Amino acid sequence: MKLVVGLVVLGFAGVFAQESNRLLPLPITAVRISDKFWAPRVETNRTRTLETVRQRLIEAGNIENLKIAAGKSQAKYRGPFWADSDVYKWIEGAAYSLVLHRDPDLEAKVDEVIAYIAAAQQRDGYINTYFQLVQPEARWTFEAFGHEMYNAGHMFEGAVAHYEATGKRTFLEVAIKNADYIDGVFGPGKREGQPGHQVIELALVKLYRATGEKRYLKLAQFFLDERGQKPSLFEKEYERLDPNPRFEFLGRMIGYRTLYDELFHRSTGKINTEYSQDHLPVRQQDKVVGHAVRAMYMYAGMADVAAETGDQAMMAALYRLYGDLTTKRIYVTGAMGASGSNEGFTTDFDLPNERAYGETCASIGLILWTQRMLGLTGDGQYADAMEQSLYNAFPAGVSLAGDLFFYTNPLYSSGKTQRRQWFSVPCCPTNVVRILPSLGKYIYSQGQDALWVNLYVQGSATADVGNGKKLTIEQQSDYPWSGVARIKITDTPGSPYGLNLRVPGWTQRTTFSVNGKPEQPAIDKGYAKLRRQWKTGDTVEVTLSMDVQRIQANPRVAEDRGKVALRRGPVIYCLEQVDQQQDLDRFVLPMSSKLESRFDATLLGGVTTLTGTAKLRPEITWSDRLYQAAPAELTGTAPVRAVPYCTWNNRGAGKMAVWVDAAH
Amino acid sequence: MKLVVGLVVLGFAGVFAQESNRLLPLPITAVRISDKFWAPRVETNRTRTLETVRQRLIEAGNIENLKIAAGKSQAKYRGPFWADSDVYKWIEGAAYSLVLHRDPDLEAKVDEVIAYIAAAQQRDGYINTYFQLVQPEARWTFEAFGHEMYNAGHMFEGAVAHYEATGKRTFLEVAIKNADYIDGVFGPGKREGQPGHQVIELALVKLYRATGEKRYLKLAQFFLDERGQKPSLFEKEYERLDPNPRFEFLGRMIGYRTLYDELFHRSTGKINTEYSQDHLPVRQQDKVVGHAVRAMYMYAGMADVAAETGDQAMMAALYRLYGDLTTKRIYVTGAMGASGSNEGFTTDFDLPNERAYGETCASIGLILWTQRMLGLTGDGQYADAMEQSLYNAFPAGVSLAGDLFFYTNPLYSSGKTQRRQWFSVPCCPTNVVRILPSLGKYIYSQGQDALWVNLYVQGSATADVGNGKKLTIEQQSDYPWSGVARIKITDTPGSPYGLNLRVPGWTQRTTFSVNGKPEQPAIDKGYAKLRRQWKTGDTVEVTLSMDVQRIQANPRVAEDRGKVALRRGPVIYCLEQVDQQQDLDRFVLPMSSKLESRFDATLLGGVTTLTGTAKLRPEITWSDRLYQAAPAELTGTAPVRAVPYCTWNNRGAGKMAVWVDAAH
Repeated sequence: MKLVVGLVVLGFAGVFAQESNRLLPLPITAVRISDKFWAPRVETNRTRTLETVRQRLIEAGNIENLKIAAGKSQAKYRGPFWADSDVYKWIEGAAYSLVLHRDPDLEAKVDEVIAYIAAAQQRDGYINTYFQLVQPEARWTFEAFGHEMYNAGHMFEGAVAHYEATGKRTFLEVAIKNADYIDGVFGPGKREGQPGHQVIELALVKLYRATGEKRYLKLAQFFLDERGQKPSLFEKEYERLDPNPRFEFLGRMIGYRTLYDELFHRSTGKINTEYSQDHLPVRQQDKVVGHAVRAMYMYAGMADVAAETGDQAMMAALYRLYGDLTTKRIYVTGAMGASGSNEGFTTDFDLPNERAYGETCASIGLILWTQRMLGLTGDGQYADAMEQSLYNAFPAGVSLAGDLFFYTNPLYSSGKTQRRQWFSVPCCPTNVVRILPSLGKYIYSQGQDALWVNLYVQGSATADVGNGKKLTIEQQSDYPWSGVARIKITDTPGSPYGLNLRVPGWTQRTTFSVNGKPEQPAIDKGYAKLRRQWKTGDTVEVTLSMDVQRIQANPRVAEDRGKVALRRGPVIYCLEQVDQQQDLDRFVLPMSSKLESRFDATLLGGVTTLTGTAKLRPEITWSDRLYQAAPAELTGTAPVRAVPYCTWNNRGAGKMAVWVDAAH
Repeated sequence: MKLVVGLVVLGFAGVFAQESNRLLPLPITAVRISDKFWAPRVETNRTRTLETVRQRLIEAGNIENLKIAAGKSQAKYRGPFWADSDVYKWIEGAAYSLVLHRDPDLEAKVDEVIAYIAAAQQRDGYINTYFQLVQPEARWTFEAFGHEMYNAGHMFEGAVAHYEATGKRTFLEVAIKNADYIDGVFGPGKREGQPGHQVIELALVKLYRATGEKRYLKLAQFFLDERGQKPSLFEKEYERLDPNPRFEFLGRMIGYRTLYDELFHRSTGKINTEYSQDHLPVRQQDKVVGHAVRAMYMYAGMADVAAETGDQAMMAALYRLYGDLTTKRIYVTGAMGASGSNEGFTTDFDLPNERAYGETCASIGLILWTQRMLGLTGDGQYADAMEQSLYNAFPAGVSLAGDLFFYTNPLYSSGKTQRRQWFSVPCCPTNVVRILPSLGKYIYSQGQDALWVNLYVQGSATADVGNGKKLTIEQQSDYPWSGVARIKITDTPGSPYGLNLRVPGWTQRTTFSVNGKPEQPAIDKGYAKLRRQWKTGDTVEVTLSMDVQRIQANPRVAEDRGKVALRRGPVIYCLEQVDQQQDLDRFVLPMSSKLESRFDATLLGGVTTLTGTAKLRPEITWSDRLYQAAPAELTGTAPVRAVPYCTWNNRGAGKMAVWVDAAH
């Protein structure tokens, strides 16, 4: 039997139905989350972050811009070219929240903003309030950095989410009209072009899946195929730009060419096309380069297109890129991007800790990409990478209270790094706000004849097996604090069906039982595969070993040599100064010393801490020198406590370190 | 009695005589070097490197360019704007060599080249073969990077050296004519301007001291005073440049503005004036920034001007800059410059080992600057820094055989770094070639009433005390391999005279004796001061402790945390793979383990090695991952041998590390 997926389970069957051998995420309506880790975060996102973000979007002018374009305000445009996108991302987050929790007040706020958007849209379908209000003559002339397609992409994503959540077509119609307009402008025999900041590719595939309109899929593929020409389309665009006009951008007067020079490092005599992954045709790419968010979004879009077209050359490129990323260019927390100058990748093994960029959005992009790779391959290595970001770099992006945000995510802080209320470019907060309520998509997948459990998150899930039949499970687990998950079958399709349970790469021993009897299921590419005619009440228990591990980095990562990071399950730990009795820079952690793990319900919303004893380097004054003789002996010991990296900086400013010197 | 210095001791009294309270270097004619470390290097420089460099300058077109400009060749110009400077630096090195060792054949080769230079010089005094032959219309329009003043500076230095060495005025007259021409172009009431690459400042002071012409000193001061204007003179120059013309530069077609954009990172919307230390008036500077060679040469020029003018604000700036450099921005080897992108400084404590730039010329610039600071202050801290470069980064710049060169000097190599025969920009080889034969200037200084021994280099020295009287000493020492130096008085002035003996910052215990009897002389700012009426045959013995030290870096240097460097005396050591039985990346050096030092006459021209036992990390394969669990236990031990850093890469390619993981 083939799987019927898409919007079917949401009750919008008929709009779009697709048959496939791929794994697809369970829709968020089919998943309930009730664990200690995610459930509070999702709830805080709903009750606090969504409204906080809305207020900041009002204060910063993002919503006002739409009102101006709608003819409902006389104010002056504020913000960068992509100010609209943050509104769209807020709508997307609100829509997912509405699926999980009916909230007429929130829905009314969303509808109000959508009304502005609809009114702001031009007759031809174009909408981008910056270019409408400030530089109407510059439409599509500055795609390298104008973000017109980036805005459109986030609109499509928000519109599909809103439609799925509410059944209302108000926003979807705007998106369709805009997509049709863009499709009329760009394409073979029409205008050449490619987005400077990718995201429209994956969004067009999403819109295609929601509407069945194949032109959108073809346009996504067109934009990918345009990349990597010689000369680059952006180089040609640069030559066309008037060198003179100047306009205000993020508070300074600037010209398009200058912006171009700056962002594409054109000062080297030609454009640094790697910045926006425009250095090679996408199917020939093999190095993860340039701006990290652009890269991750593009790879996700490539995976979407390959999923629809079966493009093997594109898949081969994705395998190479994934290998390059995970063996040379990613932080242990799932953060990416070593340098702020390009907000992205530099050279192999260049992974400085304090200067790390690690934009929250890039880690979110990795989640988007690896979820798609998992869907295409059923290979647990992609679930491992998705989980690495989901439990570490991604949740670090927002405070536990839900009101402060990290844009960059360093792995060491001398004490000055703090989350902030907002940013002149607030892409990260609006990205967090849309990912948290859509977590269901990542926890489970549904394959041709099996439900795949990717993350052992307590709650429940329903796989629609077709013909009105279902497999429903309930998970009981304290994951990620415990490695034990009890999965109870609460509704069965009545015929043999698979239950594929992930065996993470980080676990050293995994045991299974069904109804109390040990089982040794076949394990294939990181998933234990159980297949039988399930009975209601059947209970599968999985036990993953959760030893505290000291992780080392490839010695070519210069800053991490001789150091260890602490991991327990999927969680990467850090030392925060507030937990220590001595300056953590003096700590040397003996390799053989015991580290105790203990769940502390009162700390940081409930976390498992690691405690042990560190040796101490002598206290040394460095004010007037850079080098001095090293004392031969360590001076005593001190207790050390590590907390999950994702919870750091929730107790004021202070030093923080993921990598700690190891002693042998 | 005041000291009469300058060219007096060379027999050119009358040309210039200056009275001063400062320390001045002994002229190289007054110093003989016969030690195991320098004497072979100086001799190899004379017998091998000088001719090697001459051949390469012929092959690369540098000398041909002068012949073309002289009307003696029809060839086409080759090389960058500053191609002439390397010829001048070769002449400077050859001249110093001629002082040490008469060589009519070399002198004839020098005179031949000088004849081309004289014939190439234009009637008005201008000479720069690039601008004469390729872009005559562009004279003085592109000073930010045109290197016209840089070429002139190296010419003045070469001309003074040639004059001092041979007494011939052939080259000096060219220099004077050129300096007079430049002085006619630039200055108050004339043209504004400043060199893009400093060196003319210190060279003008040298020419002033050689000729007594005060205009040259004033012009040096003018160029320093021009720096740091708002807007920068370079910003104004940029605006004047024709955006269109393109020309060939190091093999690619390029325009002036593009070069400007590239080198001054103008893409950020305005010039990065820090690149050429043009961000602030020189007296207000307090951070060591930008291109490292430019910085060091400028500080040396500032010290020269301050020495002549007594400019206290300039001295105060130099003290601040020196403090900034030595507490935040210098490598333990005396290398400088963390980044290749600006060939210079980046941020505080950013001192990556493998990616280190550490241009040989920058370390030479540090020697030039600190020698001048020592002369101005008599403060041994400057001798310490001078020595740090002299025994480590500087001699690493050339192979022991004298025919291969390092341009960059990393502190870690994965095995690919090798010295090279030549470079498209060969500033480093020609710099090494002029510094080695002039070492006498750095070993001794002469103060108002004392001879200062800065380095315990075996040989002899004569201080001209005036009125035909002299203090002559002979040093017997195996420095830097031994800390014992025996200084015998072989000629005395007959009246009380000081002998000031350096007590390096790195030594932990120092003892002195005179004629076998222990002495405890007063030690002031790093110098032990002995003053008496010396008798011929008096012998002073100095013993510096030479313990092997493990050095640690300020923990804010991220890559060096938990690591140690090995130092013995002034010599910084490294591990080369060729000396080890196991992969040196696996080594962990216990803090308490014994390191034996032993002189090995057969190794690397004779060096003291350090040997001990390292613990070993397990062998691990990293090909398919970036992170993995760290083994708790080390697996055995291996012998470890360290050799002086300055001798690395003389036995083929291989891994090398200065900083080694330490175990407690």
